Amino acid sequence: MNQIDLNCDLGESFGHYTIGMDGEVIPCISSANVACGFHASDPVVMSETVSLAKKYGVGIGAHPGFPDLMGFGRRKMDVKPQEAKAYVQYQIGALSAFCRAAGVPLVHVKPHGALYNMAGKDYALAKAICEGILEVDGRLILLALSGSQMLKAAQDTGLRAASEVFADRAYEEDGSLVARTKPGAMITDEGEAIRRVVRMIKEGKVTSVTGKDIPIRADSVCVHGDNARALEFVRKIRAALTAEGIRILPLSQIIPD
Amino acid sequence: MNQIDLNCDLGESFGHYTIGMDGEVIPCISSANVACGFHASDPVVMSETVSLAKKYGVGIGAHPGFPDLMGFGRRKMDVKPQEAKAYVQYQIGALSAFCRAAGVPLVHVKPHGALYNMAGKDYALAKAICEGILEVDGRLILLALSGSQMLKAAQDTGLRAASEVFADRAYEEDGSLVARTKPGAMITDEGEAIRRVVRMIKEGKVTSVTGKDIPIRADSVCVHGDNARALEFVRKIRAALTAEGIRILPLSQIIPD
Amino acid sequence: MNQIDLNCDLGESFGHYTIGMDGEVIPCISSANVACGFHASDPVVMSETVSLAKKYGVGIGAHPGFPDLMGFGRRKMDVKPQEAKAYVQYQIGALSAFCRAAGVPLVHVKPHGALYNMAGKDYALAKAICEGILEVDGRLILLALSGSQMLKAAQDTGLRAASEVFADRAYEEDGSLVARTKPGAMITDEGEAIRRVVRMIKEGKVTSVTGKDIPIRADSVCVHGDNARALEFVRKIRAALTAEGIRILPLSQIIPD
Amino acid sequence: MNQIDLNCDLGESFGHYTIGMDGEVIPCISSANVACGFHASDPVVMSETVSLAKKYGVGIGAHPGFPDLMGFGRRKMDVKPQEAKAYVQYQIGALSAFCRAAGVPLVHVKPHGALYNMAGKDYALAKAICEGILEVDGRLILLALSGSQMLKAAQDTGLRAASEVFADRAYEEDGSLVARTKPGAMITDEGEAIRRVVRMIKEGKVTSVTGKDIPIRADSVCVHGDNARALEFVRKIRAALTAEGIRILPLSQIIPD
Repeated sequence: MNQIDLNCDLGESFGHYTIGMDGEVIPCISSANVACGFHASDPVVMSETVSLAKKYGVGIGAHPGFPDLMGFGRRKMDVKPQEAKAYVQYQIGALSAFCRAAGVPLVHVKPHGALYNMAGKDYALAKAICEGILEVDGRLILLALSGSQMLKAAQDTGLRAASEVFADRAYEEDGSLVARTKPGAMITDEGEAIRRVVRMIKEGKVTSVTGKDIPIRADSVCVHGDNARALEFVRKIRAALTAEGIRILPLSQIIPD
Repeated sequence: MNQIDLNCDLGESFGHYTIGMDGEVIPCISSANVACGFHASDPVVMSETVSLAKKYGVGIGAHPGFPDLMGFGRRKMDVKPQEAKAYVQYQIGALSAFCRAAGVPLVHVKPHGALYNMAGKDYALAKAICEGILEVDGRLILLALSGSQMLKAAQDTGLRAASEVFADRAYEEDGSLVARTKPGAMITDEGEAIRRVVRMIKEGKVTSVTGKDIPIRADSVCVHGDNARALEFVRKIRAALTAEGIRILPLSQIIPD
Repeated sequence: MNQIDLNCDLGESFGHYTIGMDGEVIPCISSANVACGFHASDPVVMSETVSLAKKYGVGIGAHPGFPDLMGFGRRKMDVKPQEAKAYVQYQIGALSAFCRAAGVPLVHVKPHGALYNMAGKDYALAKAICEGILEVDGRLILLALSGSQMLKAAQDTGLRAASEVFADRAYEEDGSLVARTKPGAMITDEGEAIRRVVRMIKEGKVTSVTGKDIPIRADSVCVHGDNARALEFVRKIRAALTAEGIRILPLSQIIPD
Repeated sequence: MNQIDLNCDLGESFGHYTIGMDGEVIPCISSANVACGFHASDPVVMSETVSLAKKYGVGIGAHPGFPDLMGFGRRKMDVKPQEAKAYVQYQIGALSAFCRAAGVPLVHVKPHGALYNMAGKDYALAKAICEGILEVDGRLILLALSGSQMLKAAQDTGLRAASEVFADRAYEEDGSLVARTKPGAMITDEGEAIRRVVRMIKEGKVTSVTGKDIPIRADSVCVHGDNARALEFVRKIRAALTAEGIRILPLSQIIPD
């Protein structure tokens, strides 16, 4: 398919604390993962972020995380599946209020940080999250790591899902990400990173860290707007994809009803 | 009118901490004000409380408060109207997710504690809250103090509203509550408290602290389930109202569309 | 040695939320592990708890936990040793302010919940905690699970330490606790539990779950004051120990300078 | 007196969130007000900030605030004096642990934000805070607004205190700050601001907003390191004061034992 979604985490500021270049990155992306007040963000920031996304016509998704503001949701917490389910439902609901207030749909849900990583490998946790999403709104789309237990759980529970790929990460032969602690985990050459993404989209393939070509499904590429360099890369990849004839579309147009 | 709603704060437990006799009081009431995670409650408690309300056919309302768990939302905080609006929208949304998951409607919104008291007297704050509720769901009913600025703001903004009265509180001539610090603020005789409520419902009148009869609108009476004695009083008032031929109905049946 | 400390978690209430029967259990114990505001407690509760301990002449210890009030500090969190060290130092300091205000010494530190369990098995984490305690006050005593990595780290770093045993838990042959998920993990017969503790104190031995006698050092027994039944057991074990000629002493008298 | 302390709020970052140019401003100041985890900061940040202050030989003070991270401690909260006292003691204790770990003294306490403003006008609140500080450590110095109720309470309770002045704020005839909402509240001309500070130090006088000269005691000037412009002003005022023969000294040298 010659199309892709570009998703980026947005609305991560909190109170007096500002993170990210939301205003600069938003014209470049098609979907925003909006933090929901657990690992980042607060109600005022959420309201403003939804307004910003509406202004730019960007698809809005909930980005639920662990209740760990101090750790930015990046630390594993040993929560039960039923707790995780309730946390996700709570955060989806909170964000959806701002969407309804702004008259825009909530389109997707992408678990954040340690919750994303844990649910990517733990089927019971992934299933509880998928069931939680389905109970709240059966039209929501799960955005999760290609080949992960979350996508498997989405399929099993009947939840629509989109497969996320990373431009700057190497893949193992089984399609999982190479751990950041291992050599070769990061794709540091920007040109190579972009060429890999183009191939994932056009051919559905990527070369694993061992050198073997593996199949991969790319519905959405994760990009970042944390700093000037990240922002520059988003502009580069957007331009390169467009030049390759790949259309950048929000998830609502990528994933069929 | 020979009808009234009995509302009670529910779902105020948090994590390992338990408050309230929710299971005992719920068969006696017609509406539950469910805490939303700011001044009390957490996602797991909210999910369970919605299930409990569903089981007993009790109307569900959001009970948004200040982000002050340590003070149980009872301490005034100098928030801007726009902040209060966002806090209320966030909490309504969070609770509504559990309602959707359970397949029950969210019926009303009753601000909690210091937010209830402040918005009862501050029109700008009250108006921001009413606008916030309307933006999220125009069918929601505001439950607020009889004669308060919140009810005025609801009328001005077109938000449906219900007028709450208290059995155990004395009223000033202007219909406001006698401050707790003043003599005679509390109606300590249970029989008298019940007779006053019956008269408020049947005649729309109450005797103020000065001895003068004043008009009062009673759509809902606030009751408590914090302890055994409070619970006993709920049973008494329920029995007395029923004996008087007053029907106890949820807000959805008290307040016309 | 015919002596033992009885330690109990105290001061776990938070704001409007009350937990524990602190006033009832405190006459029965010799050391209080006081929660420090991360997993439980708040500054007002801490101040009151220190006053209570002072009144009863009970030794005061800090009970630092993870920053997870929602999970009561019982959920594993993937924190770095340096983070745990800073959390422990912060909480020791906070409690020590109330001790200084009350004119009583801070005697010991017992990590709480998941932090206790994790540091009991993870030497790097245990060592960071011990170093953190030593940096703040070299006279503090670590109270930790008999045979754990925490006691090993205390020895290696030169921190004084006390070995804690459990009346109601079975032990593996290596001296570790039998996991709660395994059969036979709990000693449910109160008489047996007390006889085991007496033997740990007098003989330094306990029969492991496999039936083999193993050596165990008992400086302190952990008791609970959560409910009426727990309270009754504390009274029983105290009476039984006294009847056996075992003196109940605070840690400051159990552990030599 | 030809001497002054320059104090600045430091260590206000939190978890993944960074605020302030601590490393740049610290060489210019003589005292650091270190946030203590309630309105800002966390244990890791506190540990690092104390190390930074130690490296530059800057006096360390606790900067206790309201438990309102979302509002950065800038929103009035209706706390009781006894609550405020416990909050201040807790935060002083927490910071003092990092000072002891680093082998540096804790010198002063400056309440933050809304707590500073409220206690500046409310004697009962101010007195509770002063008593709280004295109970923890009788050698600590209170740093508070010139002419405020806090300084009065410090004198009444026997707590050492330092009088803080502001370069960029206008004063009423009674020595209080002109409210920010009034015209002329801010001194926007940097040269004028510096000249005013020099006169406060050398002559103990300042021209009030009405044009009348009033007496003022200046032990410490509050400066900011939030952004590049603030940093530039700190460098300017430091250079100007030095050029005027005014020595910049930490509070421990300004306030006699």
